[in-house]
Amino acid sequence: MATQGRRPGGRKRADAERNIATIVSAATECFARDPDVSMSGIAKAAGLGRVTLYSHFPSREDVLRAVLDASIAEGTDVIEAAAPHQGPPAEAFARLIRSCWPMLSRFGGLHTAAQRALTADEVRRYHDEPMAHVERLIDRGQKEGAFRADLPVDWLVTTVYSLLHTASGEVAAGRMAAENVGEILEKTLLAVLRPIS
Amino acid sequence: MATQGRRPGGRKRADAERNIATIVSAATECFARDPDVSMSGIAKAAGLGRVTLYSHFPSREDVLRAVLDASIAEGTDVIEAAAPHQGPPAEAFARLIRSCWPMLSRFGGLHTAAQRALTADEVRRYHDEPMAHVERLIDRGQKEGAFRADLPVDWLVTTVYSLLHTASGEVAAGRMAAENVGEILEKTLLAVLRPIS
Repeated sequence: MATQGRRPGGRKRADAERNIATIVSAATECFARDPDVSMSGIAKAAGLGRVTLYSHFPSREDVLRAVLDASIAEGTDVIEAAAPHQGPPAEAFARLIRSCWPMLSRFGGLHTAAQRALTADEVRRYHDEPMAHVERLIDRGQKEGAFRADLPVDWLVTTVYSLLHTASGEVAAGRMAAENVGEILEKTLLAVLRPIS
Repeated sequence: MATQGRRPGGRKRADAERNIATIVSAATECFARDPDVSMSGIAKAAGLGRVTLYSHFPSREDVLRAVLDASIAEGTDVIEAAAPHQGPPAEAFARLIRSCWPMLSRFGGLHTAAQRALTADEVRRYHDEPMAHVERLIDRGQKEGAFRADLPVDWLVTTVYSLLHTASGEVAAGRMAAENVGEILEKTLLAVLRPIS
């Protein structure tokens, strides 16, 4: 009773941090399921009031950016754990796709939400860090003769980026079964990268 | 002087049709240049007042749909003129990409505008007719052994659709030179379709 009125700053900060984590986690699932989800929908999913939600995130774009920050950080960790700089390029690439895909398929409509609410440039900048790993791997593969070198690295990186997100959208729309997509993506992208004889 | 006050119905209809054609043509260029162009921007580009614009198209989505109708009809004509049902599948496919690309690159930001303003399902339905030609060609190629048959036709059609629009976006953003993209797309997509030995 005596301490309840005082709530020291540390406790308040801990509450705020817990609320933010709850919001980002709930909002990730919301955007994945429905790219057009509203702030009310997000507040409800997080089990918090709209006032609390808006006190941490003044706009829907702010929530979306926090979700993208967390998702991209997770994606970059997964890519780094796949060690794309090690071993034969084609094997490293297959390993990278296989390890990324389960995470990417879970994000579903998030990329669509980002495309609708943010500029194309901003959405692209979010992907700079994970895509830098893909770029280095493709560049290495071209230099080692494992990947075709008659197509520009930038275009090959864009192709990987585009088909990963396209596949994610197909799964979200129910047009592809998530369990088949990893293998299909691996076959498709390795066909693009393979040197032509 | 005497006839000006009467303006028979035929003349009025002709004026309306001319205005609609002017709006659709100007709006196509507007969306291609800036996916977020406003109704005022479109009216200005068409050299018409906002009242006239709104009398024909009550909302921005209505203008966008008219632009998509016209663009997709043009695209379908170009695809049919490339005779995708004739000759060896790989040659027919290369012919189709080479004939589509100049038109597609001209549409620039239009696909982004559609993705932002309309649902993914509606954007996809607009492409059903042109993509049906691509689907028939890929299906024929798989049956004749000219294209790989271990990837689903639907996914291969989606790959073609996705990379064509991605390339269009890259050109619109100034990251690729329009004159190189036709050849790059042809090489990339034929690599995906080629049977693996």
